[in-house]
Amino acid sequence: MINKILLLIVIAIGSFINSSAQETDHRIAIIIHGGAGTILKSNLSPEMEQRYRDTITLALMAGYNVLRNHGSSLDAVEAAINVMEDSPLFNAGKGAVFTHEGTNELDASIMNGKTLSAGAVAAVKHIKNPISLARMVMERSKHVMLTGDGAEAFAQQQGMQLVPQSYFYTERRWQELQRAKAEERNDSLKNSVPKDSMIEKHGTVGCVALDLNGNLAAGTSTGGLTNKRFGRIGDSPIIGAGTYADNRSCAASATGDGEYFIRVGVTRDVAAMVEYGRMNLQQAADSAMAKVNALGGTGGVVVLNTKGQMAISFNTEGMYRAYIDENGKPVVLIYK
Amino acid sequence: MINKILLLIVIAIGSFINSSAQETDHRIAIIIHGGAGTILKSNLSPEMEQRYRDTITLALMAGYNVLRNHGSSLDAVEAAINVMEDSPLFNAGKGAVFTHEGTNELDASIMNGKTLSAGAVAAVKHIKNPISLARMVMERSKHVMLTGDGAEAFAQQQGMQLVPQSYFYTERRWQELQRAKAEERNDSLKNSVPKDSMIEKHGTVGCVALDLNGNLAAGTSTGGLTNKRFGRIGDSPIIGAGTYADNRSCAASATGDGEYFIRVGVTRDVAAMVEYGRMNLQQAADSAMAKVNALGGTGGVVVLNTKGQMAISFNTEGMYRAYIDENGKPVVLIYK
Repeated sequence: MINKILLLIVIAIGSFINSSAQETDHRIAIIIHGGAGTILKSNLSPEMEQRYRDTITLALMAGYNVLRNHGSSLDAVEAAINVMEDSPLFNAGKGAVFTHEGTNELDASIMNGKTLSAGAVAAVKHIKNPISLARMVMERSKHVMLTGDGAEAFAQQQGMQLVPQSYFYTERRWQELQRAKAEERNDSLKNSVPKDSMIEKHGTVGCVALDLNGNLAAGTSTGGLTNKRFGRIGDSPIIGAGTYADNRSCAASATGDGEYFIRVGVTRDVAAMVEYGRMNLQQAADSAMAKVNALGGTGGVVVLNTKGQMAISFNTEGMYRAYIDENGKPVVLIYK
Repeated sequence: MINKILLLIVIAIGSFINSSAQETDHRIAIIIHGGAGTILKSNLSPEMEQRYRDTITLALMAGYNVLRNHGSSLDAVEAAINVMEDSPLFNAGKGAVFTHEGTNELDASIMNGKTLSAGAVAAVKHIKNPISLARMVMERSKHVMLTGDGAEAFAQQQGMQLVPQSYFYTERRWQELQRAKAEERNDSLKNSVPKDSMIEKHGTVGCVALDLNGNLAAGTSTGGLTNKRFGRIGDSPIIGAGTYADNRSCAASATGDGEYFIRVGVTRDVAAMVEYGRMNLQQAADSAMAKVNALGGTGGVVVLNTKGQMAISFNTEGMYRAYIDENGKPVVLIYK
């Protein structure tokens, strides 16, 4: 209830800032996503659906209000993703899934469409907000991608406080790991090829934004796969797979079966089809998702260009997603 | 001297197999590279130049002979890169540079242009031939990218023997680390921004190949940057940055300042310009390198398509590179 009142206040402030900012030349725009997968109305209780809607709206408005306040698209992307990272609902930050070893290993990346600067972290275990560390890598190191303990040493050098692994403990994710391991044991008893787990795998979060200066940014953050092992890295921290932004074409953030998204290079591919293939955003997004689909992968992608044009494409039952429509109103969608 | 005789025998065998294989429909082709950087004739002793030429020729012929024997482009790429990984001359495998902590952390990736299957390993410390482990990841796991200790646990599970870190000790690389640290201390004493080290940074190796079945493959292997820290990962293990292969467009392998190659997504970009922009390979390679150059990066890329057309582009003083010409003869080049 308090959440709901907070939400209404946030929207009201957003609308107010809205009217004053519309005098400028550039359109601002933002899309966020909270993962794509087997999200059916029949599987989601009304209470859970409302919790998702509320948190997605809070995340969207956090980013939107940055843009309304003449903030940068990078600030907006970080603000929106921070809200989802701090919620236990999504597979990123607080709600990250567990690895096979019962740890949490998080990945994130962010990209600046004006400069093509980018930052990414992979397999970090003690970072509350991996998207913020990815941004530090982009802005305060000469590197793009840092991993593991080294990335955390960099975080500490930059004054970022680490959190204990216990911060990421949530009962829901722990039970998912136990179910995944039980499924694995069953599969191995039956000597069958491990089938795709029915466990909701796709809670990766992401955001694309366009600021008043006409600059795009994109970011993605995830806990990866439940029961993952061998230091597996998916598409989220890979520039060109999970995240890409270039003012000349578009900003894109993806979610789904990471391996397929890496092989297609989904976000870089979308940008390339827009830039070289002269496709519109929706055609490009659909075409990249068709390639993922043809290889056997599932997921989705959100895309935005400097005109404020938007596209969302996914081949799953549902995708947590939200954007601000032409009238400045938040639109939150979950199902197909 | 023995090396030289061996080389002549290898070339002779290659030419013999050559004549019998030319009856088939498809052309075969291969390009390898051993890094791009400040490689000037004045800096390279005649003996060192000859050692490089000999080893590059051995690597090229190892890959070429696989193709001549009706082997796959993946086998050719792996065979050629294995030779360079086993040589102390290149910054990959045996000759990998040292990290800030005095360890060696290796990265590699490989991709199958027919299926878009891909495999990559990053920050492995005990793998003699990272390209072979990348291929195992591609063919024997459901993942694309494994990192660190986890990747090595996978290697052991697959029966691959680990090597001790001492295997990667070479006096030359150790001295490079000491010089890099001395430069760093000088820079910090002078309170100046660390300037780009004069130390040869670019010894990454790679290969693209086309087999008799008309299938492309690409692979890249590296030790990364001398004095690197914080678990830094460059472009070599990133599908779409250091390595990409798609029969519909081309196979490409890159070497250079990894961060810039990730930001541009060089190999994926080259493939996209060929596929969507209808550029020829040289235009696409030059265009991608122009983007790297505009951002301030240096390096090079080798590209091959299913017609056997080739392109090499670099913006450095030199690039160790070799290919088989139309007459089946090896061509080894170093300088501009």
